[in-house]
Amino acid sequence: MNDDSQNMLSAFMNVNLTSISHNYHKISTFVEPSICAATVKADAYGLGLEEVAITLQNSGCKYFFVTDLYEAIRLRNIFGSNDNVIYALNGLKPTMTNEYISYKITPVIGSTAELEEYRTNTDESALHSIALHFDTGFSRLGFEVNEISKLSINGLNIDLIMSHLSTAEDPQSSLPENQLNQLLKASKRFVGVKKTIANSAAIFRGKSFLLDMVRPGISLYCGYNEKGASTRLESAIELYAPIIQIKDIKAGSTIGYGASYRAVKDIRIALIEFGYADGLPWSLKSTNQQFGGQFYFDNAPTPILGRVSMDIVAIDVTGIKSDIKRGDFVEIIGSNQNIDTLAKNAGTISYEILTRLNSRVKKHYKYV
Amino acid sequence: MNDDSQNMLSAFMNVNLTSISHNYHKISTFVEPSICAATVKADAYGLGLEEVAITLQNSGCKYFFVTDLYEAIRLRNIFGSNDNVIYALNGLKPTMTNEYISYKITPVIGSTAELEEYRTNTDESALHSIALHFDTGFSRLGFEVNEISKLSINGLNIDLIMSHLSTAEDPQSSLPENQLNQLLKASKRFVGVKKTIANSAAIFRGKSFLLDMVRPGISLYCGYNEKGASTRLESAIELYAPIIQIKDIKAGSTIGYGASYRAVKDIRIALIEFGYADGLPWSLKSTNQQFGGQFYFDNAPTPILGRVSMDIVAIDVTGIKSDIKRGDFVEIIGSNQNIDTLAKNAGTISYEILTRLNSRVKKHYKYV
Repeated sequence: MNDDSQNMLSAFMNVNLTSISHNYHKISTFVEPSICAATVKADAYGLGLEEVAITLQNSGCKYFFVTDLYEAIRLRNIFGSNDNVIYALNGLKPTMTNEYISYKITPVIGSTAELEEYRTNTDESALHSIALHFDTGFSRLGFEVNEISKLSINGLNIDLIMSHLSTAEDPQSSLPENQLNQLLKASKRFVGVKKTIANSAAIFRGKSFLLDMVRPGISLYCGYNEKGASTRLESAIELYAPIIQIKDIKAGSTIGYGASYRAVKDIRIALIEFGYADGLPWSLKSTNQQFGGQFYFDNAPTPILGRVSMDIVAIDVTGIKSDIKRGDFVEIIGSNQNIDTLAKNAGTISYEILTRLNSRVKKHYKYV
Repeated sequence: MNDDSQNMLSAFMNVNLTSISHNYHKISTFVEPSICAATVKADAYGLGLEEVAITLQNSGCKYFFVTDLYEAIRLRNIFGSNDNVIYALNGLKPTMTNEYISYKITPVIGSTAELEEYRTNTDESALHSIALHFDTGFSRLGFEVNEISKLSINGLNIDLIMSHLSTAEDPQSSLPENQLNQLLKASKRFVGVKKTIANSAAIFRGKSFLLDMVRPGISLYCGYNEKGASTRLESAIELYAPIIQIKDIKAGSTIGYGASYRAVKDIRIALIEFGYADGLPWSLKSTNQQFGGQFYFDNAPTPILGRVSMDIVAIDVTGIKSDIKRGDFVEIIGSNQNIDTLAKNAGTISYEILTRLNSRVKKHYKYV
C-alpha cells in the first residue's frame, strides 16, 4: 500500500503553496517599503511549518514569527544556518536561554522576570539579539507601557519592538489607534530599532499601522479581501472527505447521537468519513430547528443532519441529481464554501478550524 | 536539550495506564460472562493508540475496535501476528480488500456495495472473517434491518454482528431497547455468531445489553460512574499548562481579542501557554456577562478572562494566596476539575476535547 492510495481513500486538504507565495508577494508590494515578515506559528496555522516556511523563504521572506522555542528550533532546523530571523513569540522559557543563543532564535521578551533571566545567562558582549514586547492595551504578553522608562536595556542587542492589536478587524473600535500611539510613544526610548504592530487585519486598516515591519498570518493562508484593500488575495486551502455509505431513510427516522434530527420525509443520506476527531467542530450539529452547516457535492449544498460523530457525519443528498456513490468525495472547504462560512456555522473562527485539523487529514501540497 | 526538559516547560497530559487497566478489569468483571472488547479508535480517543492498546492487551483484552483500515494497520503493526481481533468500524475501503486480508483485519461491513466488493475480491474458501453492521435506528453505518433477509451470506466467515446505540445514556429514551430488539431479531439469521451492541453507557443501562460482547471506550479512559453502577472507575487523564507571564491589570482595561472582557477592578492575571491550537476550545471564552470556564492553581479556581487565543489564554489569579510565578503549572483537568466539567463549560462533549488535543501537548504515561 503506497501513500498515494491512502490519500485517495481518506479526507485530505489541498494546500496551494503557489497561492501562499502569491499572497506574500501581493502583501509585500502593498506594504512597501515596510518589511513583510510572516507569522507561521502553530505549525503555520496547521498547514505544515516546513512546506509553508520554505515557500515563504523562496518568495523572499526573511523574518518569521513562531509560537515558542520548540517550534523555533524546528524552524531553525528547516532553514539551517542562514540569516533568516526567527522570533519566538511566547518569550523566554525558564532555564533555556542558551538554547535561544545556540539555535540563533530571537526571544520576544515581555516581562522583567524574563529580561533578568536573559541578562543573568548571557555575556554583555554577546551579539545575540532579542525583541521586546509591549502590552499597549491587549492585556496579554508584554511589558506595561509605564514600565518602559525603568527597563534596564544597556548592553542589550534589541532587534525589534512589537505590540499586538486586540480589535484590528473592527472598524468601529478606536483601540487599535490608541495601541499604535502607545507603541509610538514607547519607541522613543529605542531609537533606530525596528517597530511592528500590524497583523493581517491591521495591514488593511491603514498605512499608519505598517511601521517598519508587518507580520501577516491568516491572510497568507486564507486570503483577506477587506473593503478598500487593493490586493486580491487567494485562499490556499481546500478540504475534502469521502463518502463511505449512502442510504435511504424513511420519514420519522432519527439520525445520529441523541436522535436530535428526525427525517420529516423519506430522504437519502450520505455518511462522510470525517468527524470531530478529524477536526470538524461538534458544534456543526443540526436539529430540525437549527441549521448546522453544510458540505457540497458537485456544487450542490448538502446539509449536515444530526450530530457530528467522532469519525463520521451524515449529510442530506436527497436532491442530488448526479450519480453519487461510496468512494466519492464531498467538498468541506473549496470553491463553494470558504473556511469563514464553515467557521461561522460552527460558532467559531477560521483559525480554530485550521489549527485543529487532525493528523488523519492528509495534506496534498500543490505547486501550481 | 533532552526530552525531559521539554516536558517540564510545555503543556502536558498525564495518561495513567494503570487506571486504564483498572477500568478494564472492573468492566470485564462486571459484564462476565460477556467478552469485554475495547474501542481504541481515533488514536485511542487521543490518548495514544500504541500505549493504550498494549496496556489493554496486557490486561487480557483480545478484541479491539478502530476507525478504519489505516488505523487498523497501525494496530496490527503494534500487535504483530498474534490472535488479537481488530475490527475496522468504518467498513471496507474501496479497492482495498486484500489489505484487510493480508493484515488480518476484520472489516465491519454495513452495505451491499461493500459486501459485493468483498465477495468479488476474496476466495469463497478463505477463512478471513468479517463483521456485519446493522442499523437498528441510528441512521448511521449499517444494513437496514429489512435488508437482512436478502443478504447473500453463503460462504462468508461472519465473526460478529453488531449495532450501535444513539441514546444509550438517556434513561428517558426507549430507543435503546427498540434497537436491542431489532438486533436480536436480525440475529436469528446468524445462529452461533457473536452479537454486540453495548458502548460504555449501555453497559450500565442494563444486563440485557451485554449480549456476547461489550465494547467500552470513554469509560476505559475517563471513568463512567453512573448511578447504580457497582463499579468504581477512574479517570486516567490529567492536563496541565505552564504560566508564561503574570501581570497586574488596572480596572477598566480590556483583556484579549475583541476586548470582550473588561476588568471591573484592579486584578492580577496569569497568561497560560495553552490555546485553541493546543486543543482548548475557543468556546471557553468569557465576557463580563458570561462565565467561560476555569482552571485551578493550588486547588483554587482561576477563571478564564476574555477570548482564548491560538497559543495563550488569560486567567484571573487575583485571589491566589500562594506564591505563583512564571514557570508554574495550572490544572486544566485533574483532581479539581474533570473533563466533563470542562466540556460542559465549552458547550461540547468530553470526547471532542480528548480527540482534539494537539501534538504540542506532550503525553506522560504513568504506570503506577
